[in-house]
Amino acid sequence: MIYFDNAATTFPKPDEVYDFMDKFNRNSAFNISRGNYDDLSGIQNIVTQTRQMLLNLFNCNPNYRVVFTPSATISINTVLQGLSYKNIKNIYITPFEHNAVLRTLYYLQKKYNFDIITLKMSINSFEYDIDSIQAQFNIKTPDVLVMSHASNAFGIVSPIEKIIPLAKKFECTTVLDCAQTAGLLDIDMYDNSIDYLIFAGHKTLYAPFGISGIVMKDNSTLSPLYYGGTGILSQEKDMPNSIPERLEAGSLNTLSVAGLYVSLKWIKKITTKKIRDKESKLKSELVQCLNQFSNIKIIGNNSGIGIISCIFESYSPDEIGKILKERKIAVRTGLHCSPLAHQAMGTFPLGSVRFSLSYFSSIQEIKELEKTLIYIYNNS
Amino acid sequence: MIYFDNAATTFPKPDEVYDFMDKFNRNSAFNISRGNYDDLSGIQNIVTQTRQMLLNLFNCNPNYRVVFTPSATISINTVLQGLSYKNIKNIYITPFEHNAVLRTLYYLQKKYNFDIITLKMSINSFEYDIDSIQAQFNIKTPDVLVMSHASNAFGIVSPIEKIIPLAKKFECTTVLDCAQTAGLLDIDMYDNSIDYLIFAGHKTLYAPFGISGIVMKDNSTLSPLYYGGTGILSQEKDMPNSIPERLEAGSLNTLSVAGLYVSLKWIKKITTKKIRDKESKLKSELVQCLNQFSNIKIIGNNSGIGIISCIFESYSPDEIGKILKERKIAVRTGLHCSPLAHQAMGTFPLGSVRFSLSYFSSIQEIKELEKTLIYIYNNS
Repeated sequence: MIYFDNAATTFPKPDEVYDFMDKFNRNSAFNISRGNYDDLSGIQNIVTQTRQMLLNLFNCNPNYRVVFTPSATISINTVLQGLSYKNIKNIYITPFEHNAVLRTLYYLQKKYNFDIITLKMSINSFEYDIDSIQAQFNIKTPDVLVMSHASNAFGIVSPIEKIIPLAKKFECTTVLDCAQTAGLLDIDMYDNSIDYLIFAGHKTLYAPFGISGIVMKDNSTLSPLYYGGTGILSQEKDMPNSIPERLEAGSLNTLSVAGLYVSLKWIKKITTKKIRDKESKLKSELVQCLNQFSNIKIIGNNSGIGIISCIFESYSPDEIGKILKERKIAVRTGLHCSPLAHQAMGTFPLGSVRFSLSYFSSIQEIKELEKTLIYIYNNS
Repeated sequence: MIYFDNAATTFPKPDEVYDFMDKFNRNSAFNISRGNYDDLSGIQNIVTQTRQMLLNLFNCNPNYRVVFTPSATISINTVLQGLSYKNIKNIYITPFEHNAVLRTLYYLQKKYNFDIITLKMSINSFEYDIDSIQAQFNIKTPDVLVMSHASNAFGIVSPIEKIIPLAKKFECTTVLDCAQTAGLLDIDMYDNSIDYLIFAGHKTLYAPFGISGIVMKDNSTLSPLYYGGTGILSQEKDMPNSIPERLEAGSLNTLSVAGLYVSLKWIKKITTKKIRDKESKLKSELVQCLNQFSNIKIIGNNSGIGIISCIFESYSPDEIGKILKERKIAVRTGLHCSPLAHQAMGTFPLGSVRFSLSYFSSIQEIKELEKTLIYIYNNS
């Protein structure tokens, strides 16, 4: 199979991730809890080091902590449902938010009655309009800003370095969804302006499913999304107050942490720059391939990460998905759980055909795709 | 390492689980979503079959569905936080509930102000007092009943066949926490009297971390614990209304499902009866071993599942845990996230030393433990 669905989950992972996970699964996949036998197998050390590598990756101050959750969706819900809404009137989002953000906000809006405001963007240039955003903030003070760092549907990258400082002038709570960018783009949290950064292990971090999380300050007052055992202070009726324990009820998925531990080491070895450069080069090749076909239109610009959304003349996205599937080419078609993004880009409600790349994509795969595209339009 | 901590997570798993997971991880760990390429790799089929095997295991009527969640803690929170509290005044629990139940209820109680009532039990015989429970129900109508099928701290099994029908006469919502019993004890849901059954993949189902869930009726009105993408109806602001989609936002951990798929096949092959018989025989051996030592006291009776809690004369549970750890014997000491259970059994606040067995425990391991126990009391 030729795999162009890396925005859904990167595949394959580095071989060392598979090797280590298999060994760990057979020998060490215990349930951790402080002060027990688990340090015998080195798991405690692996978990601690994995948290530290993430803090290093984002250049965090010592006041930041890593909270592990099983998925980015649960991470986003933990942040958005965990906020206190007493003084929240205006929540700003980008036009590219995923349903993990949108549906959570729609649900909370019914309870707390805040406004959801979309950051102004020039649809012609696909760029955020900073002056207009400043004007938006002046009229309606931003209490919370939720930004997907890069659109999962179109690959467009948000200029966080411009927008977050603007929002911070209003003491806004900032939430950055890096599901598509952690480990790929440089993210520097050193200036404390990002309150909550969400990462998804199984995407650009090249780890398996089952391990995602939130990088947040240790004085965060988020309420837990779920309650349960933490292995410490079991006699207390409330969750422990400390971060990460307050937000990590239940058994930690040590096998997935072990996978992330190795994938983070792999990223450090290869470097995010080299991963980015390779993906960027592959993206240029893919754009060039697609641009040969006058009946294929790329939506958005080409400056973002390795995600390209297209529409095909005479075919719906789903029809193209089926034809490609028959030729064993994996893409994702439709709305990519981001309906507003497709509304903004004019591809609602049918969506688009999304090709997404990774470090392990290859020129050969793009050449195979090219053959299939020729086949499609020669036979239509 | 000699592993007596199977109540925390069973270890090892059957070899075929490791083998299949490794192969699946390297070849097929994609992100599923209907109507895409994923059926190429057979994942859709694996997920569907895994749900069906669980429904078969519990002998469910066709109106039951399996909702996957990443952990039993999240499953319990999904059920308890998802109920409508408009007409809930009295919630009954056993004295053996885990903090996943207790802390969630304490949190909800602050919001909704219901009573939490403990089912009456004779502490001398460690048996539920059915007449007293009937009297409790007559005085305070049960709106919700939450029962751990077996105590994670003491192995004591709840007589669900007696208590659930009593509660059902009052149209009570019944929640059965089978984290320690699914795949080990026979559970028959055919009479529709269990509204929500919780299972933990990584415990008695011999699957990896990352896959647990709820078996529930398809007309359940539970509100979601978390919101997000489901791969269907992406244009809708609300979660889809159907079960399981309503409660399964985010990427499914297909690798862990693959592990559960194989472990369920393994359980079917070995049979729950044979697993139970083996564990029971090992438990008798362990009880015999411990009973040789007048300075070790087993707490509770010996009729339950393969979990034994003890206290040791002259040593705190944590001290024994450390000594055993030095000899590479893994046990769990303290409160096991079940403070009320230890209060009921008189072992609060220090807790106990818990030995927990699995199908893969062995007589040899018990003999090794015996040597260490002789060493402890000869050197004290």
